Amino acid sequence: MVQLSIAELEARAGNIILDGSKAIRHQTVAEKKNAVDLVTEWDGEIRSAYPAFEFIGEESFSSGHKPTLTDNPTFCVDPIDGTTNFVHGFPFACISLGLIYLKKPVLGVIFNPFLDQMYSALRGHGAYLNQSQRLPFFAPAPFPSLSSALIGVEYGSDRSNAIMDKKVASFKRLTGDSSGGVQGGKMAHGMRSIGSAALNHALVASGSLDIYWEIGCWSAGIVIAQEAGCFVGGSASAPLDNDANEDILMGRKHIVVRAIGDTESEKGVDAQKRIIRDFYDTVEDYGPN
Amino acid sequence: MVQLSIAELEARAGNIILDGSKAIRHQTVAEKKNAVDLVTEWDGEIRSAYPAFEFIGEESFSSGHKPTLTDNPTFCVDPIDGTTNFVHGFPFACISLGLIYLKKPVLGVIFNPFLDQMYSALRGHGAYLNQSQRLPFFAPAPFPSLSSALIGVEYGSDRSNAIMDKKVASFKRLTGDSSGGVQGGKMAHGMRSIGSAALNHALVASGSLDIYWEIGCWSAGIVIAQEAGCFVGGSASAPLDNDANEDILMGRKHIVVRAIGDTESEKGVDAQKRIIRDFYDTVEDYGPN
Repeated sequence: MVQLSIAELEARAGNIILDGSKAIRHQTVAEKKNAVDLVTEWDGEIRSAYPAFEFIGEESFSSGHKPTLTDNPTFCVDPIDGTTNFVHGFPFACISLGLIYLKKPVLGVIFNPFLDQMYSALRGHGAYLNQSQRLPFFAPAPFPSLSSALIGVEYGSDRSNAIMDKKVASFKRLTGDSSGGVQGGKMAHGMRSIGSAALNHALVASGSLDIYWEIGCWSAGIVIAQEAGCFVGGSASAPLDNDANEDILMGRKHIVVRAIGDTESEKGVDAQKRIIRDFYDTVEDYGPN
Repeated sequence: MVQLSIAELEARAGNIILDGSKAIRHQTVAEKKNAVDLVTEWDGEIRSAYPAFEFIGEESFSSGHKPTLTDNPTFCVDPIDGTTNFVHGFPFACISLGLIYLKKPVLGVIFNPFLDQMYSALRGHGAYLNQSQRLPFFAPAPFPSLSSALIGVEYGSDRSNAIMDKKVASFKRLTGDSSGGVQGGKMAHGMRSIGSAALNHALVASGSLDIYWEIGCWSAGIVIAQEAGCFVGGSASAPLDNDANEDILMGRKHIVVRAIGDTESEKGVDAQKRIIRDFYDTVEDYGPN
């Protein structure tokens, strides 16, 4: 019942977003004002539908103090993830809505109205695209090394020199050819940047991306990924476990690796940890989390 | 008549590609063998449908010698653009088919079977998505500077140190914040990498991307972009004209800028040239074209 109702709310929010993006492209509204209006409109609807629930969202963090996670049911909402795409009409913007209960992500819905794709997961019941296609789409393949990886990365909003130096050095080592002179180069199959953190989570869950590395409060993406057999690990300094803890749920850096099939010599979960260790050995951590 | 028939061929090729991608993900076929089979199958169909036409494609170039463009009708074909995406099931792979006549691109069709999106253009008759939505989707907006740009870039296949150094330095300057210490940083709105050159052309034509910079033989993308009001310029050293010449059609580096509306103080085409000059002042040319 809750799941259906959230799906309806997301579909409603999807229409609001599409209309808003069109209005911005047609320049009938000012961009900033419109984004705020959209958030307010959808926010009001969902809050009135779930009056007893708590909410955390981007505003909770940008107001300066870090919110505290309680044991109460708590919605983690990003009304428009991929705001740059939204403004440009690049078809990867979405509504991301996660439900955390007893400090665990239990429900996630990510809806991209541009491609009419809704990803959802309920803890213990699997992850789906459009409530019908189980994720991942294919039986999990082995994952021999980073050289076979398709990796999702983003440039983010902090573009200062210190951060950018570490990011581009990391991107260069992930993609570079060691036999062509790139020290430590892993020659990854490819790098993709679609500009939406939530949809990157969904693409790893689908098996279309192999790895995604991110900072942010993405409990919807995390539960969808976990229900699709992905491993969600913390930052380089954190112990490797697949149990998205409070730090990760509240925005700490994390890494998502797609489901990997067991082989005769290696369990899938051990392969996921091996890939994460190799990834963190390759990139330069750009902090602060 | 020709246009419809090509659309049918593309749809048929789309099914072959989807089946192939699934087979690879299910590991029922070896990846290399399968890609070759796909190319052969579709290639045979289109050649027998157009026996009098010449063909150029990736193989024409990889065989070592550069093919010569004649005045005859010539198909420029990439049966699978975005082969990495194709192998990973990342939903941006396509068939790209351009027709060149009297050394000018006159017809282009790009079909992405993963999203069921077909872009097409006939010289002088506009560009369309799915034969119904005119491109660009929205009235062309002004383009004040690179800071408002959403830019398509790709890492490419040559990952040697010399190339990678120039690429990541370029990416850093395009995205970096000059007030945060990045010398010459333009703080572009965003960078996107979807892994398909032809679809990047189509996204600039749509207005979803603002700029794309590429090497390769993409006459389908070029005519779709031009018919959508884009400016297609040559490499940094080439004169700025919007007339995709033989060099560009045969794979020389080029840049595509979206349609820009005239303002009181600046014609759209002058704004397009201004943006291209600013772009080439920002990036490091990684040669060889």
